[in-house]
Amino acid sequence: MKRRAHYTAAIFALSLGCSGPVGPGQPTAATNSAGSSASGSMSKLMKERNLTDADVTAALKTYTPSGKKDEYYIMASGGHGGNLIVIGVPSMRILKYVAVFTQEPWQGYGYGDKGSEEVLAGGMRHGKKMTWGDMHHPALSETKGDYDGQFIFLNDKANPRIAVVNLQDFTTEQIVASDLVESEHGGMFVTPNTEYVVETSQYPAPLGGGYADLKDYNDKYRGAMIFWKFDRAKRRIIEADSFAIELPPYMQDLADAGKLASDGYVFCNSINTERATGGVLEGQPPLESGSSQNDHDYFHVINWRKAEEVAKTKSKIIAGIRVIPLQTAIDEGLLAFVPEPKSPHGVDVTPNGEDIVVGGKLDTHATIFSFAKIKAALDAKKFEAKDVYGVPIIALADAMRGQVELGLGPLHTAFDGDGYAYTSLFIETKVAKWSVRDLKLVEKISTQYNIGHLVAAEGDTVSPDGKYLVAMNKWALDRFLPVGPLLPQNFQLIDLVGEANGGKMQLLYDMPLPLGEPHNAQMIKADKLKPIDVYKPGTDPVTKEKHPNAVEGGKERIERRADGVHVYMTAIRSHFTPDVIRVKEGDRVFLHLTSLEQAHDATHGFTIGSYNLHSSIEPGKHVEMEFVADAAGVFPMYCTEFCSALHLEMAGYFLVEPKNAK
Amino acid sequence: MKRRAHYTAAIFALSLGCSGPVGPGQPTAATNSAGSSASGSMSKLMKERNLTDADVTAALKTYTPSGKKDEYYIMASGGHGGNLIVIGVPSMRILKYVAVFTQEPWQGYGYGDKGSEEVLAGGMRHGKKMTWGDMHHPALSETKGDYDGQFIFLNDKANPRIAVVNLQDFTTEQIVASDLVESEHGGMFVTPNTEYVVETSQYPAPLGGGYADLKDYNDKYRGAMIFWKFDRAKRRIIEADSFAIELPPYMQDLADAGKLASDGYVFCNSINTERATGGVLEGQPPLESGSSQNDHDYFHVINWRKAEEVAKTKSKIIAGIRVIPLQTAIDEGLLAFVPEPKSPHGVDVTPNGEDIVVGGKLDTHATIFSFAKIKAALDAKKFEAKDVYGVPIIALADAMRGQVELGLGPLHTAFDGDGYAYTSLFIETKVAKWSVRDLKLVEKISTQYNIGHLVAAEGDTVSPDGKYLVAMNKWALDRFLPVGPLLPQNFQLIDLVGEANGGKMQLLYDMPLPLGEPHNAQMIKADKLKPIDVYKPGTDPVTKEKHPNAVEGGKERIERRADGVHVYMTAIRSHFTPDVIRVKEGDRVFLHLTSLEQAHDATHGFTIGSYNLHSSIEPGKHVEMEFVADAAGVFPMYCTEFCSALHLEMAGYFLVEPKNAK
Repeated sequence: MKRRAHYTAAIFALSLGCSGPVGPGQPTAATNSAGSSASGSMSKLMKERNLTDADVTAALKTYTPSGKKDEYYIMASGGHGGNLIVIGVPSMRILKYVAVFTQEPWQGYGYGDKGSEEVLAGGMRHGKKMTWGDMHHPALSETKGDYDGQFIFLNDKANPRIAVVNLQDFTTEQIVASDLVESEHGGMFVTPNTEYVVETSQYPAPLGGGYADLKDYNDKYRGAMIFWKFDRAKRRIIEADSFAIELPPYMQDLADAGKLASDGYVFCNSINTERATGGVLEGQPPLESGSSQNDHDYFHVINWRKAEEVAKTKSKIIAGIRVIPLQTAIDEGLLAFVPEPKSPHGVDVTPNGEDIVVGGKLDTHATIFSFAKIKAALDAKKFEAKDVYGVPIIALADAMRGQVELGLGPLHTAFDGDGYAYTSLFIETKVAKWSVRDLKLVEKISTQYNIGHLVAAEGDTVSPDGKYLVAMNKWALDRFLPVGPLLPQNFQLIDLVGEANGGKMQLLYDMPLPLGEPHNAQMIKADKLKPIDVYKPGTDPVTKEKHPNAVEGGKERIERRADGVHVYMTAIRSHFTPDVIRVKEGDRVFLHLTSLEQAHDATHGFTIGSYNLHSSIEPGKHVEMEFVADAAGVFPMYCTEFCSALHLEMAGYFLVEPKNAK
Repeated sequence: MKRRAHYTAAIFALSLGCSGPVGPGQPTAATNSAGSSASGSMSKLMKERNLTDADVTAALKTYTPSGKKDEYYIMASGGHGGNLIVIGVPSMRILKYVAVFTQEPWQGYGYGDKGSEEVLAGGMRHGKKMTWGDMHHPALSETKGDYDGQFIFLNDKANPRIAVVNLQDFTTEQIVASDLVESEHGGMFVTPNTEYVVETSQYPAPLGGGYADLKDYNDKYRGAMIFWKFDRAKRRIIEADSFAIELPPYMQDLADAGKLASDGYVFCNSINTERATGGVLEGQPPLESGSSQNDHDYFHVINWRKAEEVAKTKSKIIAGIRVIPLQTAIDEGLLAFVPEPKSPHGVDVTPNGEDIVVGGKLDTHATIFSFAKIKAALDAKKFEAKDVYGVPIIALADAMRGQVELGLGPLHTAFDGDGYAYTSLFIETKVAKWSVRDLKLVEKISTQYNIGHLVAAEGDTVSPDGKYLVAMNKWALDRFLPVGPLLPQNFQLIDLVGEANGGKMQLLYDMPLPLGEPHNAQMIKADKLKPIDVYKPGTDPVTKEKHPNAVEGGKERIERRADGVHVYMTAIRSHFTPDVIRVKEGDRVFLHLTSLEQAHDATHGFTIGSYNLHSSIEPGKHVEMEFVADAAGVFPMYCTEFCSALHLEMAGYFLVEPKNAK
């Protein structure tokens, strides 16, 4: 407190006091008088804009001048917006929304561009095309437990799917879906070398789809954890090499991968071990109370390295994926439980992999499990009981290192590089800083309001950076100018170093989230990413190869073939070639469109009016479109991205002669 | 220049010099030492973050502390993203993306919510549903030529449509489309009391659709200006009261409404009076050169007040709208042309309505037309010629007040309250400030890079505020952390007062646009908007009335009727009632869902897994969904917006029994 008071007085003296007389030993009179007017101007500005000294510090810590780059990227999930949100830290400017599960026209994603249409088609559910997603948890690819900046994986809770985004060009290259489960949530993370991308069900259902009444919930509903095999060289999830483990019909929730000391294991919380099903109009309690009866739920400990082997010989295929049956998982020692405090939410492995922190949202503690203790119990087969499905249960005392009382509603925990943990307190709407070494609370900082996840710089890797933390607040209320009943979320940037605040955490910046509801995020050093500026001429962004139909300048043409009209087209400032396309009503049209641009940011877009088609054509990119000319008439086609002084003239006509025209 | 140098030296002295010894006459020793360490801390911070003195000023002018509100809203078009972007000034934080022409799941817009589905269906083109848009120009509603903060209108260039967004709740309430034209662009503005929302075609086509070959371009292709009648009390465009004027097949471009001195008129630029059609593979020049042959194009002067009368008796119906034929428009004196410099782009009426500024993108001048001169010529019927369609042409000398040489590629002009105009120079990538009174260039400021539109605070009203201007730059290149070949745009906030910069304009902030390509924007005083925080219980956001199917707490039920299964459901933290819905495969399901919440920001979302449905349920909102249970099985339904500590438990099951189940 003393240091803080000093600092405040000091800045105050600086901003106001310096406008007083300047003593001897100072520079020339000219500079003096200028100095006087300048500090006057600064204090005037502070007064005009009602800025405190702490605000000035915060402004200078976050303001990023024209052309200067941010230090970190935040990769945040876009919630039910279905897209990935890329943010610069410390400026907290949003750099890009990347289309992933939801069609998005600016990027030409899912509006007739065949590459993206095929990526989206990879995520069909029960044979149906999904046009939106509820993205919860981003997972950056890792090498030896550290972010390597190559890929990011995203999940969809509503329509269980996993997407692969290549950070070379921030393009979604793959979406996979398994009909094994009907919902998932927080089990989205990678193993330390990105061997697997892990997806865990949330609301149980019959595995592989199909109907079963709720009265058969205990017997026929199940959870599952899916291990999607990632092939880094092929840049793809290999479905045939993936496997799953059947789980009891609890609601599996957040999960994390072991690393270093705990490498080879994954840990997952669960709620509703009561197996409540809801049914308020049928005389049952609602889930919110039905699932909050027990004092403990089950922390899941899974040996994925062993499971990988077991899957090869003892799995059965359900919905196209190898599934290790629950009994096999038990028999093979792949799965054990530990009682964890009532209705937990977050589970986070410490940087050294030795401890696992669980936040109990209806508890006031964070519970710290020791992997060494768990491993010892597993090795000794020391279990206190089995659950109703026969899963062995390790006694809490045989797994827990300790607890730390933090406050109301502890959810998620992030780490710095100095041995501190930061846990979000949803109900108390604060961040609690505590020492992992001695499990002691250090300090708390308020957030505005209702913090969910939080993210620290590289905070879930083996080597966190500290420095910055972002509180991901669920409610914004009075933080920003009003925009009607649907409000943005509020990301708050917190300075962890706090050298201007007596070493305490300092709130630096409030940032509204204008689209989507981020759930979780990761913050990666900016220099780990090496995105490309342009594509090589004729590149298909999904394959990153030259497309077989890529068009060279001078070879543009229109060919009528048996299957339809093929248009080999190029785009370069400021014209499309061809710029007139003549077809007959009912013709199938194949558009092969290559950008001849190689200048950075010389992006074009292409649309045909009222045909509901759109593509974005970055420099060098090749786009394929296929559609039926089902409406006769005259349809302007034009460049949708302002590209040059003659951009408006980058246009032409798509002429569809009626079928019965003379 | 002298004042600027002084100021820089001054801030430098403040930030660095003050860390030197403090002279006599200063406060106590304690404060002295604190002051010394503080200024040391500030200069350390400046050094660490490489901030200049100008940066410090810019930081303090833009940083908006936690919980403090911005002064202005910017309403920016979202380009081919199809949504409206709401930004706070001076913080340049994006407050909201509002779904307009493109489906957007976070807002539950177009994902099964019947209200929004019906709004989108209002914008069908040739009977086809459009699921994206290319939004170019926002137009805030006006009263006496000043923004009134009630509505904003948006246009779609690709699939000609106009949308009405109510600023009470930032909800799109209406979309209208006319099949009269096949493309539009910049003719999106309102008359001074929002009597009409004006939409102008860009690429000519046969009016009302239908086919005509390009060889018949001169005879059968036409442009049109549509005057959509807005009924403020009904909050709707009234299609039956709207009308259009047929125009020659030039490419009509940007337009603006007269005001005060020029009230009753609208002004519109055109390009391609050459009537080039493209056809490079057919031996024609591309549009970019074909349309740049003439030294002049035609500035359109239209008397809309008279046209409104003429439309009542002398129009014919095409594509459902009253159209005044070109010959009638000529005969009735509704339309005249003035030659304007080659390939113009922007047209902007001065605040007093006396002058009209045209930017010629292939010219180095802004051309200033005098409405008084134009009116005198019209009254005297003093024309120098007629165009090939018989439209009378006023001689340039009889219309022009003067020209001001600004630089390369002048496009758009905004105004402040002190008689200055600010014109964007695309090719030179600068903003030029000039005096409207004496047509003299004052100064220029560089932008990064390729500025298109610009927007000043209330800068296109009868009473501009000055203070802030935003350059809307098309290319970002090296401004931000790289995000692959598709880059954000760059909005640059410029201080027009420049008291810290010797009265010159000062660049304050670079802001990436993470989704969409804004074309134009308007900046409105924050206190003019009075958005609501919650809906009254059971409100339909489109009608703003209580929905007839609104559900009260305690009256939830499921009813099987002849037309299907009706579910009367409520949502309140943390449960849906009912939380179990049982139907049979093939049943039509009518979901009537009311939020019982009245707490600000207590928003829920609703989805049924793999059914590709999603709605956002703000407090008090009522949502209707109708769908067929076409997939049998067990589908979790849940709240998609993190609403409370027991949010994950706000879930249930949608059970679809197979048709042939025993």
